[in-house]
Amino acid sequence: MKRHTRNAIKSKQEIIQKSAAVFNIHGYSGAKMQMIIDATGYQKGGIYCHFQSKEELAKEAFLYNVKQLKLMYFDGIELSDSPTHKIRRFKRNYQSFLRSPTIRGGCPLLNTSIEFDDTNPEFKLYVVDALNDILTLFSSIFKEGQKSGEFKNDFNPKEEVNYMLATMEGAIMLGQIKQNSKLVLKISDRMFKNIGLTLGIDL
Amino acid sequence: MKRHTRNAIKSKQEIIQKSAAVFNIHGYSGAKMQMIIDATGYQKGGIYCHFQSKEELAKEAFLYNVKQLKLMYFDGIELSDSPTHKIRRFKRNYQSFLRSPTIRGGCPLLNTSIEFDDTNPEFKLYVVDALNDILTLFSSIFKEGQKSGEFKNDFNPKEEVNYMLATMEGAIMLGQIKQNSKLVLKISDRMFKNIGLTLGIDL
Repeated sequence: MKRHTRNAIKSKQEIIQKSAAVFNIHGYSGAKMQMIIDATGYQKGGIYCHFQSKEELAKEAFLYNVKQLKLMYFDGIELSDSPTHKIRRFKRNYQSFLRSPTIRGGCPLLNTSIEFDDTNPEFKLYVVDALNDILTLFSSIFKEGQKSGEFKNDFNPKEEVNYMLATMEGAIMLGQIKQNSKLVLKISDRMFKNIGLTLGIDL
Repeated sequence: MKRHTRNAIKSKQEIIQKSAAVFNIHGYSGAKMQMIIDATGYQKGGIYCHFQSKEELAKEAFLYNVKQLKLMYFDGIELSDSPTHKIRRFKRNYQSFLRSPTIRGGCPLLNTSIEFDDTNPEFKLYVVDALNDILTLFSSIFKEGQKSGEFKNDFNPKEEVNYMLATMEGAIMLGQIKQNSKLVLKISDRMFKNIGLTLGIDL
């Protein structure tokens, strides 16, 4: 019985993980059941054994994609106590992602924002939650730097993070559609330089 | 015969115009035929009388949406010979759009970029063309200002426009999903101030 449950959890995780790219590439409406079957190797019946609906799987796949994004953005950030080093480490993580995206289909926050902003109020809430979560994580680093005196005090951390996130997402959009990672790196260099000036550090 | 042709052109235009918002809101895959029928008041047969496929109508609707976007962005810009006034006028146009969007469903360039970057190479080309067209229009204003001596000479117009467009698109995305036009206005103020510094003008 225990083994059965363990296997069920493992299968569920496998379906989420293997269908995550399908949803991120094709959109949650554009992802057809056959694509999910092909990507996961599970039949329709097997998939619906673990998820009540395609919507439920889509939500889990979205949360999985966001988790990967956060792991990538914040990778190694906890290794330092210095907010300056944290931001520099984040810049490195983000620019590595621009050079060779580890999440297929671009940024899941951007993709789902565009798909659901006008059409699916429930899913929209998951997107807003995930966005707010990332905004809060960045804001806390900016606030930490202001408190410790490493950063200037004359800027609003929340506004700075919104500006950073908007430029990052727009840059990913341009890079994806123009298939030009150099262009995106230049945009992000421009943005980080600007943020460095606001924070009072060299970025 | 002439009246018949005139009527046919008028009907075709009406279908494009009335279905444009449906495609921009729901995406080109998400826009179902019934939604197009409801929005246009034409039956399926009537629609296919003017367009060979949903794809063809989607393309025309996209081009219509981009035309509206360009009309809005560049409205009144030709009234001045001064590149400084042109950029200030554009800032006004863009921020009016953020306050009360005249194109339902957000920016058609952003929406179609996200939908087609990985999935539809043909449609992707239309998006890249439209983006390049807008990038060129802005670049020419920046170059004009450098030539006339109104703007500084130590920046790359194309790179500056890419940065501007990325931040604009990301700001629209955040505003749409968070339903917060104030936040987006702040991001765009931050961006225009920064561009003003690069150009050497007050924005």
